[in-house]
Amino acid sequence: MMLGQNKNYLDMIPDLGFGSMLSDGFVFRQNFQIRSYEVGSDQAVTIETLMNLLQETSINHLKAIGVWGGGSGLTREMCKIKNLIWVMSKLQVAVDRYPIWDDVIQIDTWKGAYGKIGICSNWTICDAKTSEILLTASCIWLMMNEETRRLSKFPDEVRSELDKHLTNVTLPVVARKWSPRDEMSIVDHVRNGIMPRWSDLDMNQHVNNVKYIGWILESVPHSIVENYELASLTLEYHQECKMESVVQSHTYVMVSNNGKIGDYDLVDCKHALQLETGGSEIMRGWSIWRPKQYGNRLGLE
Amino acid sequence: MMLGQNKNYLDMIPDLGFGSMLSDGFVFRQNFQIRSYEVGSDQAVTIETLMNLLQETSINHLKAIGVWGGGSGLTREMCKIKNLIWVMSKLQVAVDRYPIWDDVIQIDTWKGAYGKIGICSNWTICDAKTSEILLTASCIWLMMNEETRRLSKFPDEVRSELDKHLTNVTLPVVARKWSPRDEMSIVDHVRNGIMPRWSDLDMNQHVNNVKYIGWILESVPHSIVENYELASLTLEYHQECKMESVVQSHTYVMVSNNGKIGDYDLVDCKHALQLETGGSEIMRGWSIWRPKQYGNRLGLE
Repeated sequence: MMLGQNKNYLDMIPDLGFGSMLSDGFVFRQNFQIRSYEVGSDQAVTIETLMNLLQETSINHLKAIGVWGGGSGLTREMCKIKNLIWVMSKLQVAVDRYPIWDDVIQIDTWKGAYGKIGICSNWTICDAKTSEILLTASCIWLMMNEETRRLSKFPDEVRSELDKHLTNVTLPVVARKWSPRDEMSIVDHVRNGIMPRWSDLDMNQHVNNVKYIGWILESVPHSIVENYELASLTLEYHQECKMESVVQSHTYVMVSNNGKIGDYDLVDCKHALQLETGGSEIMRGWSIWRPKQYGNRLGLE
Repeated sequence: MMLGQNKNYLDMIPDLGFGSMLSDGFVFRQNFQIRSYEVGSDQAVTIETLMNLLQETSINHLKAIGVWGGGSGLTREMCKIKNLIWVMSKLQVAVDRYPIWDDVIQIDTWKGAYGKIGICSNWTICDAKTSEILLTASCIWLMMNEETRRLSKFPDEVRSELDKHLTNVTLPVVARKWSPRDEMSIVDHVRNGIMPRWSDLDMNQHVNNVKYIGWILESVPHSIVENYELASLTLEYHQECKMESVVQSHTYVMVSNNGKIGDYDLVDCKHALQLETGGSEIMRGWSIWRPKQYGNRLGLE
């Protein structure tokens, strides 16, 4: 007896599965259905879930092309040479529409070279039924020697195992700057005392990159989180957070000349995660928010 | 081009999909593959992930039998009558073996009656390849009037839409008590200042039941979390946590007569979540821990 009693539930054409390479040999594709616990209070999938799924496909891509060696993205040659790890340097994500519970999304991912020390991961998420593009994202990974904590050029062995799988078609990761005038018209919101939870550690014993995004959102004023949704996010990772770190999350909301938050229905924010002791920066970010497409929109004052 | 270059990755026989009812008409079955971000620092899937997947199958079960009406488990008749919600009263879970990254698990779930005011959800998780049982769990849901916050008998309409889908075969949810002698030999570990994050809210605007489990684990001493894994957990939910609540998590670790933690390699703990202001109890729990089956086992002193 298959699911026959609820037509809506049956109306799920796309396959779920373990993913596969497209015939161009560069793009890995995998479908996912949004689960009940992956959506937030506005019924839309959380940004953290989307980022987790991007990470998942990126690793499965390495597995599919046969170069995955271990952990969350080490290649076979990296494992042989030892002490080489990837560190996320920059991330850019733009969300056109948030899928909701039960939607099936199709994630495409491909990789490109980024100079001699990096690699660029690219993703699109589209609605698996309509092919509408929902999200585009790209990030830059740099290779680091885990012992010396210094950036490392790609060893030839790693370069040669990856080269044939890299494409030139990469999505841009744009560097963002704030002009001095902007700096004068912002309101600072702070959330103190963020401590990593045990469940924030990933299989490499590090606080996962995606958790930092959640911490950044902690200092976004409730009036924005309730009424607006993240349209785009740019992040620069500066240093790692340790299990014993206490983190301070800052969100600087742009205020326009008339004293109102938001301009043309968009809200601009700047973000920083800092260590409470010493104040050194873990991460810096920029975000743009637009009125929520799902749920009620209330006035924002 | 399918996943042909990595044999281990291809060695995934079970299907993923949207789940289906078994031919007995009572049991809903769905397979899931454990994703990279669902495992913890010891490579094993986190208990929160397992609990989330149980919740997911429970809702999909309602959809499959055609009685799902909305939210995270309301039936069609509950939606018509309005103001009726489910509240989790007790939960019991026993984990024999934690699946690891990439494992495919098969979850079976079925429901039974629990007196005139409740329903009992039951689950088993097994390894989809070997059929080895990994987890058994059951919980009791009570019906509540959301406006009066009082427990409610099942209206006849709800009873009759659910009755034919309920089985008598339910897993026991055992009430646990601590003897006075036990109370004298415990060490209290506290984690203060736990504040719900925005991402802790579910689609019903409530802190999801599963998040409470994470908070309970926050006060378990690191020496236990690092070296032991949760073998069983029993929880009693007493009241809801609000977005503005500040929560205190207590773990009381049993110490045996020789002053050592743990007896026959098992550690017994008692847990409480309390509001920092007023101290009223949100949740009470009991857990048993055993040495980790994956990763290194270090001495616990």
